[in-house]
Order: sequence, then C-alpha cells, then structure tokens
Amino acid sequence: MDFLSMPKPELKRTYAKLLEQYRRFQEQKLDLNMARGKPGADQLNLSAKMLDLVNSSAEMISESGNDCRNYGVPLGLPEMRRLMAELMEVPAENVLIGGNSSLNLMFDTVSCGMTQGFSGCEPWARQKNVKFLCPSPGYDRHFAVTEYFGLDLITVPMTKDGPDMDLVEDLVKDSAVKGIWCVPKYQNPTGITFSDETVRRLAGLKPAAKDFRIFWDNAYCVHDLTETPDHLLNLWEECKRQGNENLAFFFASTSKITFPGAGISAVAAGSADFEALKKRYSRQTVGPDKLNQLRHVRFLKNIGGVRAHMARQRALLAPKFAAVLKKLKEELAGKGIACWTEPHGGYFISVDVMEGCAKRVVALCSQAGVKLTGAGATYPYGKDPKDSNIRIAPSFPPVEELQQAIDLFCLCTKLAAAEQLLKNE
Amino acid sequence: MDFLSMPKPELKRTYAKLLEQYRRFQEQKLDLNMARGKPGADQLNLSAKMLDLVNSSAEMISESGNDCRNYGVPLGLPEMRRLMAELMEVPAENVLIGGNSSLNLMFDTVSCGMTQGFSGCEPWARQKNVKFLCPSPGYDRHFAVTEYFGLDLITVPMTKDGPDMDLVEDLVKDSAVKGIWCVPKYQNPTGITFSDETVRRLAGLKPAAKDFRIFWDNAYCVHDLTETPDHLLNLWEECKRQGNENLAFFFASTSKITFPGAGISAVAAGSADFEALKKRYSRQTVGPDKLNQLRHVRFLKNIGGVRAHMARQRALLAPKFAAVLKKLKEELAGKGIACWTEPHGGYFISVDVMEGCAKRVVALCSQAGVKLTGAGATYPYGKDPKDSNIRIAPSFPPVEELQQAIDLFCLCTKLAAAEQLLKNE
Repeated sequence: MDFLSMPKPELKRTYAKLLEQYRRFQEQKLDLNMARGKPGADQLNLSAKMLDLVNSSAEMISESGNDCRNYGVPLGLPEMRRLMAELMEVPAENVLIGGNSSLNLMFDTVSCGMTQGFSGCEPWARQKNVKFLCPSPGYDRHFAVTEYFGLDLITVPMTKDGPDMDLVEDLVKDSAVKGIWCVPKYQNPTGITFSDETVRRLAGLKPAAKDFRIFWDNAYCVHDLTETPDHLLNLWEECKRQGNENLAFFFASTSKITFPGAGISAVAAGSADFEALKKRYSRQTVGPDKLNQLRHVRFLKNIGGVRAHMARQRALLAPKFAAVLKKLKEELAGKGIACWTEPHGGYFISVDVMEGCAKRVVALCSQAGVKLTGAGATYPYGKDPKDSNIRIAPSFPPVEELQQAIDLFCLCTKLAAAEQLLKNE
Repeated sequence: MDFLSMPKPELKRTYAKLLEQYRRFQEQKLDLNMARGKPGADQLNLSAKMLDLVNSSAEMISESGNDCRNYGVPLGLPEMRRLMAELMEVPAENVLIGGNSSLNLMFDTVSCGMTQGFSGCEPWARQKNVKFLCPSPGYDRHFAVTEYFGLDLITVPMTKDGPDMDLVEDLVKDSAVKGIWCVPKYQNPTGITFSDETVRRLAGLKPAAKDFRIFWDNAYCVHDLTETPDHLLNLWEECKRQGNENLAFFFASTSKITFPGAGISAVAAGSADFEALKKRYSRQTVGPDKLNQLRHVRFLKNIGGVRAHMARQRALLAPKFAAVLKKLKEELAGKGIACWTEPHGGYFISVDVMEGCAKRVVALCSQAGVKLTGAGATYPYGKDPKDSNIRIAPSFPPVEELQQAIDLFCLCTKLAAAEQLLKNE
C-alpha cells in the first residue's frame, strides 16, 4: 500500500514493525559494500590469462619495432591505439594511450585547460569565474576534478534523454562556461543513454567560449547488460559533420573490461587539441606502460574479442542487476516512496527515495553494516538539492550478499519514509 | 699534440686527414643512437623473470588485504611504499607510489604548484614572473617541464660539488624564485654527486618565497658503476634537522632498475606537502597500477635485492663506460680541445668540446649515422651559452657499436676543432 495515503495508526504500526526488522538486521553484523562500481572477483578472473601473455619468454617487440620494456612510443603502441579507436569509434591517429586510469587523462586535460588553455585562449587559471556544467545526478569523481581546480560547478538536470539540452544551449551563451561532463552511454548513475537528438545538439553547440569543450567519458561503451543494447550516436562524426572538430575530448578505458587497477586508458581529440595533448604528454611523461598495452592487445585482439569478453562479463553482472531490480520491485513498487532506473548496461542503478530521505537511508544502511555511495555524491559539491538520489552499485558483492544488502536497503528506504511521514504529522 | 699550439700548415694537413677519415665513416652508413639514457636489451633481460611473478595462478592479494587487480589503495601498496622508502631513505609513510614515470610525478608536482600553490601561497599561475633554478648542464626533460608551464628558467652553473651554492643562496632572496631542479647523485649529465656541504646548504636554504621547493630527483640513487660508490648525504634528514621539513620533493623510480617503460615511480614529501599530494592524487586517479607494484615487490624484495640486482646491471654497464673513457683518453687527451667527466655511476658522460663546436660535432656525427643528444639540450631553452657541452649516453648500443660511435665522436670533435681553428685564422 502507498505509504503516503496510509492512515497514521497503520503507518505507526508499520514503522514499529520495520524498526523491529531493522534491529534484527543489525544483529547480523553485516559488512557489505555497494559504494563503488567495483567489478567482482569473478569478473576479474575472466581476464586472468591476460597476465600470462607477457612473460619472460614472450616477444617484447611491438608492431612499431620497439622493445616494449624500454623508453619510447609516447602516444602508445599502434596496435593499442587501433584497438581503443575501434572501441571509441574515432580515428586511430587521433588516439593517445595513457596509463591505467582514464580519470587521470580527464584530470590532465582539465589541468591543461587551467595552465595552457585551448584554442589560443587564456588559460582557465587566468580567467575569472570559470564554470563547468555538471549533468546531475552524475559521476562524483568528474565533479571532484573540476571542484579541485576551483571551477564553479553548474548543475544541469539529467533527463531520460541526457542533459537538459535547452538549458545547456542557454548556459553556453555565457563565455565563462568552459565545459560539460558527459557519460553518454549507460550514464553513471542513471544508466540512461543519450538520445540521438541530444548527441546532435551537443555536437552542434555554438558556445560563446572558443575554449569550451565536451568531456565525453564513454566509460561504458561496450558494457551492455541485455541482448538489446542501447545505441549511442557517434559524437566524433557528428562534430565533424557540423564543423565542430575541436569541440570534444573523448575518453575510454579497459578498467571495466579487464582490470580496474591495471587497465589501459585512452583519450582522443580533434587535430588541434590532439597536438596540444601530444605536446603536453611529451613533457609530462617518458611514455605509457607499453608492456601492459602488449598484454591487452594480445588478450583482447580486436573489437570482436572485446565484445566476446564483454558477453562473459554480462553473464556475471546481469543476474546481479536482475536481483536488485526484482527486490526493488517486490519491496518498494507502488508504495510512493521510491522510483528507480532499469539500465541496459553500465554499473549502476539510480534510486530516488522520498525527498529529504537519501542521507537518512544511507546512514541507516551504514549503521547496519552496508556501505552505499554517500547521499548527495551524484551532485556537484555533494549536495543533492532534494536529498533524494542514491546510487546503487551491484557489481562487487556476490549475489547472496547482494540480496541481503538490497533487503536492508529496501527496509531502510521504507523506514526513513515512515519516519519522515510521522515526523511531519 | 695540442691542436691550439699546432702550426697552421700542420693543422691543415691534420684537417685534411680527418676529413678523409670522416668520409670513410660516412661510407659505412652507420645507424647508431647515443642520444638517450636507454638501458640496453641485455640490461632489460636481467628483469625478465619479474614478468612471471604475477600470472594467472599467482596470489593477487596485497599485504593490505586488497585485490591488486581492482580499484583502491591510492597511495600504493604498503610493501611497495616500504621498498621505495628504503631506496629513497625517507619514511615509508611519506611515500606515494605513482605510475611508470617519475617524470610524470615531477610534472604533476610542478602542475600542483601552478594551479593550487604550496604553503598556502597563491598558485604560481597567478603569480607574476615565476622563476625556476636550473643547474646546468642538467637534465633536458626537467627544464622542459618548467618551460612548458611558462616559468623563467635561470641557469645556475654546476661545479664538481653540485650547483654553485653561493649563487643559489643569492638567487633565492628573490621571492619569484620558486624551485630548483636537482639530480643529486651521478648528476645527469656530469655524473658528479653533490658534496655534503652542498646538501647541507640546500637543506638550510631560507628562500624569500615560502612556496620555494627543491625538486630532488634521485634517479640514480643505487646506480653505481664502481666498487667505491659516491656517498650522498640524506637531504630528508638534513631538512628535518634544520627545521625545513617542507622544503623538498623527493623522486625516484625503478626505470633504470627494472624496465624503463614499465617501472614504478615514487614521490615523497614533508607532512604538509604530502597532504597536498594525497589530495591531488585522490582527485586525479583511481589509483596506481598495483599489479606492477606486486611484480616489483616480488622480484626486488628489499633494498638488499635491489643492490644485488644493480650489481648485475653494473657488470653490463661498467665496460661500456670504460670503453668510452678509454677512447676519449686515447683520442682526445692532451689535445686541448675537449675535457670530460669520469662518473662513478649514473648513465652519462659529459664532454665539453671546444667552445662554439658542440652543435657542429653533433651535426657531423648525425651526418655520419650516429645520433647524439642535441647540443645545448643540457641547458635551459636548449641554449648552451658556450656551445660546448655534449652528453654521451653509452648504455644502449652493444659494446662493438659503441666503439664505432665513439671513434666517430672523437673524430668529429677533432674535425670541428680544426675547422674552427682554421676558420679563425
């Protein structure tokens, strides 16, 4: 029954029962973590053999003729650039390979804007009141990068089709607005994929700032959970078609394909921006880890190999998502106290609990031994104006633990809602 | 015979003979490279077994209980931090592990100064005319980092004891001077080690700028070439003793211990600066590659393991240095046209050819198929005021090729000197 229309005496009895259930949960002394999009150990095992492909008797010479153990090849091995280009659907000559973290490439690119500037403009560090658009709910680590550099974070609501484009088109008339964070496919945390129209409108932006850039973090480009994966329009092609070649930086990694801690990252950019990145990285590093690139190329081979591998990942991940969604439906549907997304890919389920309850739900879960992403984390400065959004990361715990964790989550969602409704009485 | 006191007719005959020899060299169509301090393939083979220590059947859990394949442990594995701390002679709790390039950590640290600032001062990007001290001849990639960020590079002459400390102490009275690059042991390219007095005076600096920092790149800390290695005073201890805990950033890597392209880097700093670095890296990356750390810890074990490994490196490297020094002595000693260093470690021999001849020598070598580090590279902005210094990197070519390359180098040194002496006639 809908909590909101429940007569108060019944709501009180319900609350008492929920509290009793919560106490029993606390007695179990759980210690579970659904805070971050960490792959489970079973998923990591899928890539174990990769580690055997570069050993003491393996060939160390890349396609380019370089000994991968030594210095050199600053842009990355040609074979690795080609593989990432296939994944990112951009030309290989515009791809630069990084280390194990695409976040690092994003940070470096923002940092490049701060100290060097883009398109011949003054570095952002020397401009006043520089702003960055943050579609929200969104990825907390993105927001943290631009917050670190002291930029003003502007919240843009996420719709089912991507960022609110009317608002984005309006905001970029302000020349202080220098960029926008995007996770275009299976967005973190909503799981939605940007519609074709959203991608076209992004590619066609005419920002007042010449040094405005889209930060296109295609983190889940091949991370499907169903047999009918979402389709994302190719932003690279769209930008080119609309004469906006240097509008976007493109990022991807194998963090959630092979190993989160030891994957391969890549960035791509239009010709002028690519030259700026090349210049930066020629100063910044002696070159990326080519042995790890060799491992990846030998293991994944090509986009076909990646897709086959991702089908094995899906076989492990999809049941976890299904388990969470089943529980949410059983426990929370029709109660008027929560709604959630049913993503076709990615790593997260986004739940909106009753307004003003998200922090309380996270705290209740934590006090009973289940760690969730902090409430508010999906908004700039960690502040969810409605205190409603909670990001659920089902990948890490084994299914049976996940069931327990979600049972507790549903219970806490009801408990917090009842608490609030009774308080408002 | 000394070229400078040679009668002109004899010098002309000598020149003609040298030219004839040079033509014969050109006919050989050599293709050799002594440009960078790249270890030879034989040196890389010494670490081949390291690649077998993290394979599909290996334990993946670190001392800290973390699965090294997954996200987490942003400061690096405790066992890796301990190993680097031993190498760097600093406390492990002040060590942060990076990726495969310590240059990257240095770049990031300068970048941190640019956008965030140190000791609560304005970020360097917002201060005017920021200057950086560059002991020269020095490491071109250091200078390139600070040049990239638009800082004014101030040349400080290198002496046999390190940077000219009278000058350094004078220059830091200028509050626009924010740092100094140092390779304190087996300096690149001179091979000298800073004297105890130099280290003490550096540790005792009282710069006008609160945000002045020593960038202490101890790249060759265990890279001895003789049985009587140089001793470097511990800057960390000296800074502490003199109440200057946050005066320096300390860098090191295993690039020239294991693999240049796939080693482990580290940075250490006093408590306040370490907090600033921790904050930065928590925003910048999902954490360093822990599988490569695991490989390194299992292979090198501890400082004893490192020293035993470096003795094997020395057995391969020392004969190359000996071959170069023997040739230089045979061909150039007593001719008044060149002098050079005889380092006890590191990767370079620094040769000063006749003033105004370095570019010509490098060009002549290049036209006969031997690539050297560009003349001037060892000075800020690539400009050697005397056009005299050339850095020789003997590590990469096999000994027989090295002999040929050095024969050519000596010939070109004589040729350029004779050319110039005849031209000045």
